[in-house]
Amino acid sequence: MTDLQSVLLTDLYQLTMLQGYWQEGMDDTAVFELFVRKSPPNRNFLIAAGLEQALDYLENLRFREEECNFLKQSGFFSSQFIDWLANLTFTGDVDAMPEGTVFFPNEPILRVTAPLPQAQLVETRLINLLQFQTLIASKAARCVLAAPDKLLVDFGLRRAHGSEAGLLAARAAYMAGFTGTSNVLAGTAFGIPIFGTMAHSYIMAHDDELAAFRAFAHSQPTNVVLLIDTYDTLKAVDKVISLQAELKRDNITVKAVRIDSGDLAGLAIQVREKLDRAGLQHIGIFASGDLDEYALMRFTRDNIPIDGFGVGTKLTTSSDAPYLNCAYKLQEYAGIPRRKISKGKQTWPGRKQVFRRYDDAGKIEKDTITLIDDPQQGEPLLMPVMKKGKRLQSRAPLTTIRKKVADNLATLPSELQGLEPISQSPVEISSRLIRLARETDKKIGLN
Amino acid sequence: MTDLQSVLLTDLYQLTMLQGYWQEGMDDTAVFELFVRKSPPNRNFLIAAGLEQALDYLENLRFREEECNFLKQSGFFSSQFIDWLANLTFTGDVDAMPEGTVFFPNEPILRVTAPLPQAQLVETRLINLLQFQTLIASKAARCVLAAPDKLLVDFGLRRAHGSEAGLLAARAAYMAGFTGTSNVLAGTAFGIPIFGTMAHSYIMAHDDELAAFRAFAHSQPTNVVLLIDTYDTLKAVDKVISLQAELKRDNITVKAVRIDSGDLAGLAIQVREKLDRAGLQHIGIFASGDLDEYALMRFTRDNIPIDGFGVGTKLTTSSDAPYLNCAYKLQEYAGIPRRKISKGKQTWPGRKQVFRRYDDAGKIEKDTITLIDDPQQGEPLLMPVMKKGKRLQSRAPLTTIRKKVADNLATLPSELQGLEPISQSPVEISSRLIRLARETDKKIGLN
Repeated sequence: MTDLQSVLLTDLYQLTMLQGYWQEGMDDTAVFELFVRKSPPNRNFLIAAGLEQALDYLENLRFREEECNFLKQSGFFSSQFIDWLANLTFTGDVDAMPEGTVFFPNEPILRVTAPLPQAQLVETRLINLLQFQTLIASKAARCVLAAPDKLLVDFGLRRAHGSEAGLLAARAAYMAGFTGTSNVLAGTAFGIPIFGTMAHSYIMAHDDELAAFRAFAHSQPTNVVLLIDTYDTLKAVDKVISLQAELKRDNITVKAVRIDSGDLAGLAIQVREKLDRAGLQHIGIFASGDLDEYALMRFTRDNIPIDGFGVGTKLTTSSDAPYLNCAYKLQEYAGIPRRKISKGKQTWPGRKQVFRRYDDAGKIEKDTITLIDDPQQGEPLLMPVMKKGKRLQSRAPLTTIRKKVADNLATLPSELQGLEPISQSPVEISSRLIRLARETDKKIGLN
Repeated sequence: MTDLQSVLLTDLYQLTMLQGYWQEGMDDTAVFELFVRKSPPNRNFLIAAGLEQALDYLENLRFREEECNFLKQSGFFSSQFIDWLANLTFTGDVDAMPEGTVFFPNEPILRVTAPLPQAQLVETRLINLLQFQTLIASKAARCVLAAPDKLLVDFGLRRAHGSEAGLLAARAAYMAGFTGTSNVLAGTAFGIPIFGTMAHSYIMAHDDELAAFRAFAHSQPTNVVLLIDTYDTLKAVDKVISLQAELKRDNITVKAVRIDSGDLAGLAIQVREKLDRAGLQHIGIFASGDLDEYALMRFTRDNIPIDGFGVGTKLTTSSDAPYLNCAYKLQEYAGIPRRKISKGKQTWPGRKQVFRRYDDAGKIEKDTITLIDDPQQGEPLLMPVMKKGKRLQSRAPLTTIRKKVADNLATLPSELQGLEPISQSPVEISSRLIRLARETDKKIGLN
């Protein structure tokens, strides 16, 4: 089985460049920063996520024997270079926004300060880890804002893009305020509450729907959520009602029914009425099937009596915006600020910090992106998280990060909390930084 | 580090259902089939992919001690049930379309025939593995059709959704006809040719662009592809031209230049002219940056002198259609055909086969979906691949699968090869199957 955490999970050009740096003796300090160039049209804010896995990656970075052997026989590298790689570890510093921080385009969320080859090598996997969880946490936060106080469960493992995507999407969604996940491995790995009851196949494997409900209730007496849309949703509710009367003898309570197809809102209203008429106000309604933040927002707006939602594919693929236009760029090397000016892809040079100011109501007023030696009013958002290759803080519990997201979402002005796209983000570039960009351009002979 | 191949990478409901089946002694033979309900609007065909990893998963399915311990303390399960799980392996049969087969909605691409609990348990990961590679192979095949005879390289690892997505996207793209990948691990794992040269950071870390080009050429003398858009693309071409004169003394040849931003078509024309005027017809032009099959199609149509393309994010996230509406559904249990009739999610019952007929030109004329005991004219697409939990064939080399895709793409009628969506797919449902669906509905009292 391929080791999915292998250091070879990288782009070949990182290694060909490294051989170049090594031959030229270029191992001065480099500063790279990771940022999102531009938000997808439907995102008014983003949530920084994935730092824990990024730091794990940096701490464990090694070229093992079999990896060196593969590189040897690939024909791209000299054996002296590979011997040098075999001793490489990450010994640099990292500054970053803590996971769960709300941020905006152009703001660095992570800065790596390390000898050039190390800082270069880690580009691919750092982007891979940070962009994905940031993508999902940001999408999930929109769901949470659209359906406040509802039970939200990540159901998206099956259509997530592979195993790691399924696992980390569950983490990102929980961090953003989801109640839990159907993903058992995410429960094991991160202590996220897990949810699950039955699929249509369970009903279909029984010759009779009521018999399936009854068997399930006896098998999972404290977790009785019954899926009622396999054949005829409203007829199935009648079966649930008669079953509940029968289950009373055994002290078993149906917790909820689940609807997974059809007109969820219309069905939920009818199901609620039937249950209420039978005096079963305690039985909740859980809905799933093709949901996203827009559907959740409509249910909320229309006061549809649904108590919880399973949000799957559209969450774990961030289907309306399945990637972030993000980059990890060299900002300084050997003490000299650097800047790429490729059309549409210009970067801000130098080591930067973001300062956030709040208004009297505690809402974000303005973020200022500037150089680290140009402090501004407000709260600095990046903080040291790794020194000489070692983590500075112990891992934050996921519940702490979840609390941070909730607190951060509360600081968003209401127009940024909404699902409607806002064209302006509350970000300004400091005059010092603008000046440095101009000077850098002059040095490379372009202005 | 979490084991991304753990059997716990599944939805909790698979396990709660399993406890139900176990308590009820429901272990008769179940038949599940995996199919795509509906193609995304921009897909005229799909390419079956991921079977190799799916069979690996089935062969290695085990609940290990630490996994059982987690389930014990989760509170959902009885310890007798967990003891039973600890001895569970997959002992069923699998029939499937070989990887690389072109297929259409409603056609089963995989059938599992196994004791109900086993067949149920594997749903989540089978969908997770098969939908993702199918998604990417299908997207990649569109790129290949849009830019025939061009060098196409997967550049998408950094924005793929995690490690496994990056790895398996490279596999799916290569299978579909890509020339290779930038992903070194995919080279190790699958023998896919790897490509890579330099990033902008390499140029920027040097004080001078020409010095960077020169250093790189000496460091990778057989692999000199120079990135020319960091500052001013046309000025950089002049540097390449003068450098090539200088490198001649050391017998080093610049293979290509790469453009990664700006108006790729316009720049490529100007770069080609400059190189040709300097007598450097042998230096190719490679382009990258925000590419997909539509961009490739325009370059092809307009005869833009670009020899190869790096296709990244939009490939590995299948950004215009980041998921397939696919399902794994119970079709038969204990000898009785089963059917779900939830609104918009009806399934065809029974064990099915797809027969494909070709016209005289060798193009697909019609696929017929029918029951396995109702043979039709044409080639049957599903074949036995696993018996009693053991693979029947040894792994097909990826190059063989790649050849199969090329052969299959050639059988597509030209309207299905195009990027424009066609509303009809060449699929019919047999009268036997329609009759069985009606009878099944009657039995569950619905018609």
